[in-house]
Amino acid sequence: MSMTHDRSSFYLDDIPLQEARERFSQALAAAGLDRPLGIETLPLDRALGRVTAEAVWAKRSSPHYHAAAMDGYALRAADTDGASDRNPIDLALENQTTYVDTGDAMPSWADAVVPIELVEPIPPSADVRHCDTIRIRAAVSPWSNVRLMGEDMVTTELVLPAGHVLQPIDLGAIAACGHDCVRVWRRPRVAILPTGSELVPPGTQAKAGQIIEFNSLVLAGQVEAWGGEPSRQAIIGDDLAKLKTAVASVSADHDLVLVIAGSSAGSEDFTAAAIGELGQVLVHGIAVRPGHPVILGMLDRASPDQEVPSRRSVPVIGIPGYPVSAALTGEIFVEPLLAEWTGRLPRELPTLEATITRKVHSSLGDDEYLRVTVGRVGNRIVAAPLTRGAGVITSLVRADGIVIIPAGVQGFQAGEKVNVKLYRTPAEIERTILILGSHDLCIDLMAQFIAFKGARISSANLGSLGGLIALRRREAHLAGSHLLDPESGEYNLTYVAKYLPEIETVVLGFVYRQQGLIVERDNPLGIQGLEDLSKEDVIFINRQRGSGTRILLDYHLTSQGIPAEAIRGYEQEAFTHLAVAASVTSGRANCGLGIQAAAAALDLDFVPLFQERYDLIIPMEHYRHPKLQPLLQLLEDPEFVQAVKDLPGYDTTPMGKRFA
Amino acid sequence: MSMTHDRSSFYLDDIPLQEARERFSQALAAAGLDRPLGIETLPLDRALGRVTAEAVWAKRSSPHYHAAAMDGYALRAADTDGASDRNPIDLALENQTTYVDTGDAMPSWADAVVPIELVEPIPPSADVRHCDTIRIRAAVSPWSNVRLMGEDMVTTELVLPAGHVLQPIDLGAIAACGHDCVRVWRRPRVAILPTGSELVPPGTQAKAGQIIEFNSLVLAGQVEAWGGEPSRQAIIGDDLAKLKTAVASVSADHDLVLVIAGSSAGSEDFTAAAIGELGQVLVHGIAVRPGHPVILGMLDRASPDQEVPSRRSVPVIGIPGYPVSAALTGEIFVEPLLAEWTGRLPRELPTLEATITRKVHSSLGDDEYLRVTVGRVGNRIVAAPLTRGAGVITSLVRADGIVIIPAGVQGFQAGEKVNVKLYRTPAEIERTILILGSHDLCIDLMAQFIAFKGARISSANLGSLGGLIALRRREAHLAGSHLLDPESGEYNLTYVAKYLPEIETVVLGFVYRQQGLIVERDNPLGIQGLEDLSKEDVIFINRQRGSGTRILLDYHLTSQGIPAEAIRGYEQEAFTHLAVAASVTSGRANCGLGIQAAAAALDLDFVPLFQERYDLIIPMEHYRHPKLQPLLQLLEDPEFVQAVKDLPGYDTTPMGKRFA
Repeated sequence: MSMTHDRSSFYLDDIPLQEARERFSQALAAAGLDRPLGIETLPLDRALGRVTAEAVWAKRSSPHYHAAAMDGYALRAADTDGASDRNPIDLALENQTTYVDTGDAMPSWADAVVPIELVEPIPPSADVRHCDTIRIRAAVSPWSNVRLMGEDMVTTELVLPAGHVLQPIDLGAIAACGHDCVRVWRRPRVAILPTGSELVPPGTQAKAGQIIEFNSLVLAGQVEAWGGEPSRQAIIGDDLAKLKTAVASVSADHDLVLVIAGSSAGSEDFTAAAIGELGQVLVHGIAVRPGHPVILGMLDRASPDQEVPSRRSVPVIGIPGYPVSAALTGEIFVEPLLAEWTGRLPRELPTLEATITRKVHSSLGDDEYLRVTVGRVGNRIVAAPLTRGAGVITSLVRADGIVIIPAGVQGFQAGEKVNVKLYRTPAEIERTILILGSHDLCIDLMAQFIAFKGARISSANLGSLGGLIALRRREAHLAGSHLLDPESGEYNLTYVAKYLPEIETVVLGFVYRQQGLIVERDNPLGIQGLEDLSKEDVIFINRQRGSGTRILLDYHLTSQGIPAEAIRGYEQEAFTHLAVAASVTSGRANCGLGIQAAAAALDLDFVPLFQERYDLIIPMEHYRHPKLQPLLQLLEDPEFVQAVKDLPGYDTTPMGKRFA
Repeated sequence: MSMTHDRSSFYLDDIPLQEARERFSQALAAAGLDRPLGIETLPLDRALGRVTAEAVWAKRSSPHYHAAAMDGYALRAADTDGASDRNPIDLALENQTTYVDTGDAMPSWADAVVPIELVEPIPPSADVRHCDTIRIRAAVSPWSNVRLMGEDMVTTELVLPAGHVLQPIDLGAIAACGHDCVRVWRRPRVAILPTGSELVPPGTQAKAGQIIEFNSLVLAGQVEAWGGEPSRQAIIGDDLAKLKTAVASVSADHDLVLVIAGSSAGSEDFTAAAIGELGQVLVHGIAVRPGHPVILGMLDRASPDQEVPSRRSVPVIGIPGYPVSAALTGEIFVEPLLAEWTGRLPRELPTLEATITRKVHSSLGDDEYLRVTVGRVGNRIVAAPLTRGAGVITSLVRADGIVIIPAGVQGFQAGEKVNVKLYRTPAEIERTILILGSHDLCIDLMAQFIAFKGARISSANLGSLGGLIALRRREAHLAGSHLLDPESGEYNLTYVAKYLPEIETVVLGFVYRQQGLIVERDNPLGIQGLEDLSKEDVIFINRQRGSGTRILLDYHLTSQGIPAEAIRGYEQEAFTHLAVAASVTSGRANCGLGIQAAAAALDLDFVPLFQERYDLIIPMEHYRHPKLQPLLQLLEDPEFVQAVKDLPGYDTTPMGKRFA
């Protein structure tokens, strides 16, 4: 079965998201499934986070008797009338007063407590807790230091409304007013069925063409986080009969069935057929991006639900196989349904207004969910779009939020204000350090070390020049850069002067690193230098324009008189050192210019050619900002410096040195 | 053992909160307990919400091969050069092209995919998926519709940093890059020991002097919510030897011991003694309110931890017995410790600036945690202080947030701006309807019904006049009121004119309700009317000044010529109808004026005297606001109307009628 894809399919007629939602809602309502599914009674120690199905009314008062509120002596307030320093009043134990600890029931004849620290024992040498008579030097007013019956709750009072998500303190209040259990909505049971003959379980040494099945992990995590009980089923191969059997079987004892993949219209996409034969396909294809080949349907239940014999229908969702599409389909369709079924309001992500950093064009016909990273740079919140590929799960891992571009809107211009629905708290956004520009493994190391200091790095690779431009547009706090000036042989300084003329900027040394040719293991082509790149059997993989490595290459090609046209693959571009190495591993190329660490990472050979300086370019405004101090301190942290030194091809001599 | 109390104790020397924190931190650091406790390896399907103990680096690339990104035909891009509508190019299967589904590995000789919808079968009648030759009418660029190896992640790349709280999508990313498990910080084991001979478990029919033990439920809920593993122990009576045995026993296999109550200096407070004998008391008594009798200490572990043989110390916290003190002690001391031990940042509550509604005086020496309700009224966010009693658990249940009044600050004037740490989301605060004034059971019913409509009612009883004053000060959206004008015999209108002269206001009828005398069961004193209140053996319980019921009483006493001084207990005040009834149940009084429902709730007798009208007073600005519409709609909801009718003594005739 093919992984379903993100683009408009050959056969699918996408309908608008809003219409899809309405069809699904109507079918759910018709089946009586537009409300919580049922009630269960739980002991209080298992009810945390659950939603009350009924209001909780006080079964008894709390306190249920008049209680001493202090350690001291219980007495009749009237007996202390007129007591003063000059006119102390003595009260005899047994007759007029009695010792009480906080929480003790008041004797029926007493109406006040005098705290023990205001009492003198008579005789003065006696223990104030075990004397015969006490002396009091101030009058006590009636009911002072007494917790009156019902002070906290009175029988029949409303303690919690229905639909309340139980917090720790609520459990105490429910117990205090006489209950030992609570009625909550039961958790919906959700079956998750991954399909596809190409799928193998996590941890498998997958061969080419085999794909690790991880969508069911993500969906199960979502279902759990949203209050359902997920049950992951075994992978089902591309076989309509087997799929039908499996779906029919889980529909008997689950409230919702999620079938992952096979929801498109490819040659091995059987999900719609299976649903159609077991019930009804309501929607096949929705104009939402990522998403598209989503199926919404209702199954006829194989055997009726025991709790609700009349309940004959089980909703089913065909989830696209691309991981970003799968996760977003969960957010769009599964979350609101679980909210309804568990009696709580749908999840509301906090929103933030931000300035979008790039122009984004979106299809007029689709609702698009655009992933963005978000951070505060100076007095602006900026949102930088991440890759829109539905297959790139890391784009969702790294996303700080989502910008919804509704159907009918063609996108945004760079600099436009957008509303971001945040996956992180506003406080996390505030402490995020945005690093753009040339990416280096050491930035990942930095992210790793800085996490322990409570800060957070969000980085994206734009190439060295891209980073300077981002700084000029005030979209990042700092940029990594290794731009060689062919005239001066100096790094970065002339570029900073040219691209950031109006911004006071610090050029902070970071590392020397080895650039060279990443080649196949054992270097079968015997590549020794740039002069070998024009050999017949060498296929080169280049870096993108504006990257420091590309500039370095072009500089040396020019000085060695090697024309770019002579190099096969010069026009093939990769965006990171690791991507260059991966191209060599995969056979797309057999040689590329990059850093030693990338070759080492993929177990390739490396032909060292040049040492270059990689700096951190930091506008003064950010350099002095408290937010960046944890990062600057790292440059002097021996543990961090050692970790960089341990990377092959790195030299930390320039670290922390100011070049401008 | 006494419940420990909130006020300065006889024997305790409170130290400042900051100093207590420092002493505890130093002791934890000295014992090596200022960091996560240890690592465990979990399968991915059990890791949701856990915190990564190490960075996750990609073990393999994703995809780990060049994969078709569309259903279609794999081919060499070069073979399609020059293809156009006029100059179609045919490619033979086997030799030049082959069918691929999305996700399939690209054949080694191919470098692009043409989507199936752009392909014509030759002959045209053939199935496009099973033909011998395909025709193409556009050139394909190299690597188009191919997901390159490593497009998502390249081996050795940083996928997640350490210290990251695992979200559903992260589980997928970790699996995608080759792992089937993840290393996370283990959950701290926390023993919770409730102490006190007066304690009985939840659900017990507690007698006077017995207290239901619910603090351990609250603390266990907190520990669970904050990432620990709580283990509630059996209640321990007031017995130093038993307490020592129990504490020593749990210290052997727990990371933290919480001893509830007995932490003060009362005659039966053994917690400090037990800790002192099993280790060291670091702090006994902290200047924090509520809180005060908190103990911080370190126990010598009975048998060394197997994982860390050198770990000999176990921190212990003596938690005050009053429920609000207990819960806040959890927030102040347990939460940050669990954050440190689980490798995450301490919880950050969202904050909001609000206007405080009342003057609050706080002790200069204490850090005070003031509970408040919060809502938006017009363009202001208002924070109304709740009761400060440490025994009133409902004050924490109802709290929307906390205002910290630091030591050295004497409090706030009404109208001052304060910072509120919110227990609820800002969105929940936005949809909260604040109802002040006279409280009625129907307001609770309303809160109950409205919860299903996504709105939220926060109400407090200030009496009818208090409600009008709150409206004038713009601290509420509406007020319940039943103020009888003795001159006109009309309800509310003259009071609204007098107290809200400058605010356009709607007086909306709500209910008629029966007021009368709440008396003991079977009315043993034979009370029949107000004239009986001056009888020798009758003890009256009054309502507070400004309440509609008090005004009603005074009106009828005057008209019947009964002097207030003739009524024993006239000066005793209760703040709600239920509190009046509770006073009769408890024997504090044997008669009070109130509504029939309150008498019925506590199974008391009722002598009906007057019917009165209870209205909702709503400034026009709020009456028209969308936020209030769910509430106004309720007045026409047959289910709600019926629920009110079902209450004894209620008549819904005026409901929804506008009197002004």
